[in-house]
Amino acid sequence: MQLGLSFSDSDVSSFTPLVVLELADDTKAEAITWLLNRIRDKQQNGGAELLVNQLLFPAQDDQKSNPNVFVVGSTLQRLLNGAEDVGLFKEFQDGTMRGFTYANRESFKDFNGDGEGFLSDAECQYIIKHGLDTLRAKNEQHVPGYPKLKLYPGKSVVRRLQSKGVLIQYFPLHNKEDLKRLSFSWYKKFKLSFQPLDDIRHYFGEGLALYFGFLEYFTFALVPMALIGIPYYLFDWEDYDKYVLFAVFNLVWSTVFLEVWKRCSATLAYGWGTLSRKKAFEEPRAGFHGALGFNPVTGREEPVYPSSKRQLRIYLVSVPFVLLCLYLSFYVMMVYFDMEFWAINTYHENPNIATSILLFVPSIIYAVVIEIMNLLYRCAAEFLTDWENHRLESSFQNHLVLKVLVFNFVNCFASLFYIAFVMQNMVLLRQSLATLLITSQILNQVMEAFLPYWLQRRRNKKVHKRMRRLMGDKELPLLGQVQLETEMNTYLGTFDDYLEQFLLFGYVSLFSCVYPLAAVLVVLNNITEVYSDAFKMCHVFKRPFSEPAANIGVWQLAFETMSIIAVVTNCALIGLSPQVKAYFPESDTQLILIVVAIEHVLLAFKFILAFVIPDVPKHIQVKLAKLDFDSLEALKKRRRALGRKYWKLRRPEIRGISDG
Amino acid sequence: MQLGLSFSDSDVSSFTPLVVLELADDTKAEAITWLLNRIRDKQQNGGAELLVNQLLFPAQDDQKSNPNVFVVGSTLQRLLNGAEDVGLFKEFQDGTMRGFTYANRESFKDFNGDGEGFLSDAECQYIIKHGLDTLRAKNEQHVPGYPKLKLYPGKSVVRRLQSKGVLIQYFPLHNKEDLKRLSFSWYKKFKLSFQPLDDIRHYFGEGLALYFGFLEYFTFALVPMALIGIPYYLFDWEDYDKYVLFAVFNLVWSTVFLEVWKRCSATLAYGWGTLSRKKAFEEPRAGFHGALGFNPVTGREEPVYPSSKRQLRIYLVSVPFVLLCLYLSFYVMMVYFDMEFWAINTYHENPNIATSILLFVPSIIYAVVIEIMNLLYRCAAEFLTDWENHRLESSFQNHLVLKVLVFNFVNCFASLFYIAFVMQNMVLLRQSLATLLITSQILNQVMEAFLPYWLQRRRNKKVHKRMRRLMGDKELPLLGQVQLETEMNTYLGTFDDYLEQFLLFGYVSLFSCVYPLAAVLVVLNNITEVYSDAFKMCHVFKRPFSEPAANIGVWQLAFETMSIIAVVTNCALIGLSPQVKAYFPESDTQLILIVVAIEHVLLAFKFILAFVIPDVPKHIQVKLAKLDFDSLEALKKRRRALGRKYWKLRRPEIRGISDG
Repeated sequence: MQLGLSFSDSDVSSFTPLVVLELADDTKAEAITWLLNRIRDKQQNGGAELLVNQLLFPAQDDQKSNPNVFVVGSTLQRLLNGAEDVGLFKEFQDGTMRGFTYANRESFKDFNGDGEGFLSDAECQYIIKHGLDTLRAKNEQHVPGYPKLKLYPGKSVVRRLQSKGVLIQYFPLHNKEDLKRLSFSWYKKFKLSFQPLDDIRHYFGEGLALYFGFLEYFTFALVPMALIGIPYYLFDWEDYDKYVLFAVFNLVWSTVFLEVWKRCSATLAYGWGTLSRKKAFEEPRAGFHGALGFNPVTGREEPVYPSSKRQLRIYLVSVPFVLLCLYLSFYVMMVYFDMEFWAINTYHENPNIATSILLFVPSIIYAVVIEIMNLLYRCAAEFLTDWENHRLESSFQNHLVLKVLVFNFVNCFASLFYIAFVMQNMVLLRQSLATLLITSQILNQVMEAFLPYWLQRRRNKKVHKRMRRLMGDKELPLLGQVQLETEMNTYLGTFDDYLEQFLLFGYVSLFSCVYPLAAVLVVLNNITEVYSDAFKMCHVFKRPFSEPAANIGVWQLAFETMSIIAVVTNCALIGLSPQVKAYFPESDTQLILIVVAIEHVLLAFKFILAFVIPDVPKHIQVKLAKLDFDSLEALKKRRRALGRKYWKLRRPEIRGISDG
Repeated sequence: MQLGLSFSDSDVSSFTPLVVLELADDTKAEAITWLLNRIRDKQQNGGAELLVNQLLFPAQDDQKSNPNVFVVGSTLQRLLNGAEDVGLFKEFQDGTMRGFTYANRESFKDFNGDGEGFLSDAECQYIIKHGLDTLRAKNEQHVPGYPKLKLYPGKSVVRRLQSKGVLIQYFPLHNKEDLKRLSFSWYKKFKLSFQPLDDIRHYFGEGLALYFGFLEYFTFALVPMALIGIPYYLFDWEDYDKYVLFAVFNLVWSTVFLEVWKRCSATLAYGWGTLSRKKAFEEPRAGFHGALGFNPVTGREEPVYPSSKRQLRIYLVSVPFVLLCLYLSFYVMMVYFDMEFWAINTYHENPNIATSILLFVPSIIYAVVIEIMNLLYRCAAEFLTDWENHRLESSFQNHLVLKVLVFNFVNCFASLFYIAFVMQNMVLLRQSLATLLITSQILNQVMEAFLPYWLQRRRNKKVHKRMRRLMGDKELPLLGQVQLETEMNTYLGTFDDYLEQFLLFGYVSLFSCVYPLAAVLVVLNNITEVYSDAFKMCHVFKRPFSEPAANIGVWQLAFETMSIIAVVTNCALIGLSPQVKAYFPESDTQLILIVVAIEHVLLAFKFILAFVIPDVPKHIQVKLAKLDFDSLEALKKRRRALGRKYWKLRRPEIRGISDG
């Protein structure tokens, strides 16, 4: 079964393969022919105008490997036009970032000759992805060979094939040389340095680069807190009275930290050209289904799902389910406290080494259980959110994030809140915080990087062995690479990475004043996190498509919410501290009123600060205003030129005076 | 001194005068000639391409009337082109609102024939104002005849003349017939009905129509509260224990009220075509001055004032001044309390009618003093904000609003806060609230409408007498109208009107649970307010230029802030109520903790509600998305058409394979 050009490493006269497309191995031949033709067809005929070839593995393969693997590439011309279609921003000759247009291509800074090297690999792959995603059905009733796989005119073919399992996956290929260079500057140098954010963005896109930028920024922001925390830890281990100062510092820090990050992220996003880039029109997600109807926006026929039904599913199933899970989480917490008391009692009855070790066992078990519950809940949340049948990927993501965040927050912090404010036991709070933090960090690093790496190494070896058996010692770089990367795990986006940072931020900002070492632990964790995340991006997972992003999105809101909660907890902790209580020996009431008043003032101050500090630095604002002004002027000129044409045809008219 | 065409009521063959331009009566003739030429000049030569004529009053005028009064009009053609320039949105044939373009004029709904009647008077006047405002200096070094009045190339001539006092004012003329029709449907009908918002918008523009829309909405929203308040007042006058329920209702109401208003305002603004209209590039305000420099955005030479100097002026002068005023306001409040106690003591020593009337005297004096202090402070705030030398009108307005709001809030509510939470005297609180509310309402109505109306009537009579003396019984409608309107007061924008509503909202939401009749009083006030405001717009003030507005701007934020403060005060009032205190006989601490907890939950709920309720109703969102989609599709088509041209010249290129 050989369709189109056969393609192996010996064909040197062909194109650079950028994206791999894997169809199910039992896909009918006519469907493949049809799809390839549609991909190759001219854009004016509704095709994607991309280059695509089948990847042929040697026939004597005894182990079944999927024959329906294709590589996709593109002409330079098509890529440059595509860059305009997706609305890419590039640096202009005058140093500002402007929307790339093919007509003005010569005026962009790094455009030389025919534009070779002007677009990064990640950009080319993004353009190809956009080309594939927007390949729309024309008049076909169904996919050839699949009478049941209906097509709707104007809807994305690729999404349809994907949701029906004909298209297994499509992903961008790594560029081994660039990867080697990137990984050297990123994590193989022993010199301590900033992360090469521009290189990361160049290779992986803006979304991921912003994550690493945030990770680095967060870690640096924690350093002063860690430095203050160390003497607290060294000299005042049992003297938790003195944490008032630390809590105040905590409050100011968490507000300023997030406001400054917004400005940093705006600066980064401006430099990468995503700040003023318009969001493209969003296609429905692949899994979306419903009765046939008309989209009120596009006027096209497509599946429609009434939002009232979705609301019912959300409020009658999802919300009760989440509440049930929260109740379960509380129940587990109470079991943990029972265990804790049992351990303490055992230790007090018979204090020896075994029982003193026993003291830490409940916390560790609880930390492990929390992680397991988080994992299980995550799967359930994904299933439920999928079942809610959201039309857009962004709305799916928002509902998923909300579900997961609420549960993770309660699951991770409920016991700490209980210890702090119901039991008011600061020694236990410190101990629990330490155990939770350390255990979850260790678990995270293992689950996130080392386990996948180990699995990947095993797979690599298998693939290498097979390839060697097949071809002997012949070098087959492309075939081998595609074979390898097809079987790598897919990186599911920055969700888990941000979630981890969110929880760490919670540990640091909510309670760290009773355990000043928390910041130190988080800094240490994040330093290894940078390396393990970098490593996993480069070697464990498939290369992800670059995702244009102007900010960290919903996570900014999540972190800000956490910092507001932190004001409340820190004020409460200050109010509970014996040191402060000593000032109001006669009346608790007065103390509480003062603490509440201070808390309100701090909250108001926080909102005013967030309002007063501009989200975008002045110099970027000026550049953006300049762009706006220029385009307005250009528009006016064009209009005036058009206007003159009309005016030649008409003489000014005088309206009769209608006296007032 | 007669320049250009002479113009009086006998010239019927001329244009409809729409805008009046008044220059200082000692303006040099060459400056006038130059200005008129610039206004009449073609747009491609940098002129405004408007029609302008001098208004000649009969020469035998013994009383000096300014000879330099001009009327400005325009050809229909120029107006339609101007509508495109200012980015006017009009209803399209398919019912959506789209940016008007001259080329597509036939596709707009109400465009018939040559477009006569397509634009409302207010829109025409706005276009003429825009034309005058954007009349820019070319190569002139200075205004002819005024060597010291320098001009900067590319800067607005009119603003320059205005700031130097050569141009006294320019304002739109009333249209007597439309005005008669509008005022009939607005306030002369005796039938109770909704306000004719569309007509108001048609005559006065979106900014003012939104104010009246808000006034109406606010009044209707208060009706349920007023209805609940009446039985409270009738049956439980002294039983203020039962206000818990009322306070809870208050909280829910104030949150929902503001969220729903946002949606209403979006619906109104969509229908008026201002919702998706882009803000035009803002010119510096007339009073802005500074050393000559380069604008970083436009690259043009213009006065530049370093923002560090402005910051210094704000933080070293304005902020201390505001704080001083606040201190003064507190001082006056304490004096008021002294008076109050003196009056109460006098009454107790010798209770008779005279002393019982005396009981109300301090409150009334205080209310009057508050109004006077507000007025004085207002002038000082305007002077200071002007002195801060803000470059843009919007930034000037924001700083002014902030200054005035903070002072007015403290000045009006400080005594109530003091009585409620320091003195905890609910009887006195109720009495003060009633006195403040009633006095300030009466004062407001007098100051705002009746006083200006009375002054205006006197002026009208004088002008009529003069005109009659001049011309005998000859009818001179236009001359008379211009003469009259030139001397009318200028309407200074919706600031004071919103401010009044803001304070009323404060009285209702902050403390109304102790004085349920407040809502009734505010409803009654607002019903007369609608009529007096309508009357003052139609007959007391000059017609204002229409101001495109998509929402009530900074006032939305102000009202939301007030509703947040209302949560705090209402929770505190509930906590102070004897009824609630009775539940916690043994411990104040527990009560306070519970109240604080409930308050936090309510605040969180408020934020979640504000976040969950979409600001723009679904059906408007769909229409906006449809517009976006259509323009995107059109852009793509154009690009593809352009692209094809390029493609004919180039053959697709094949990049050599660089094996991975």
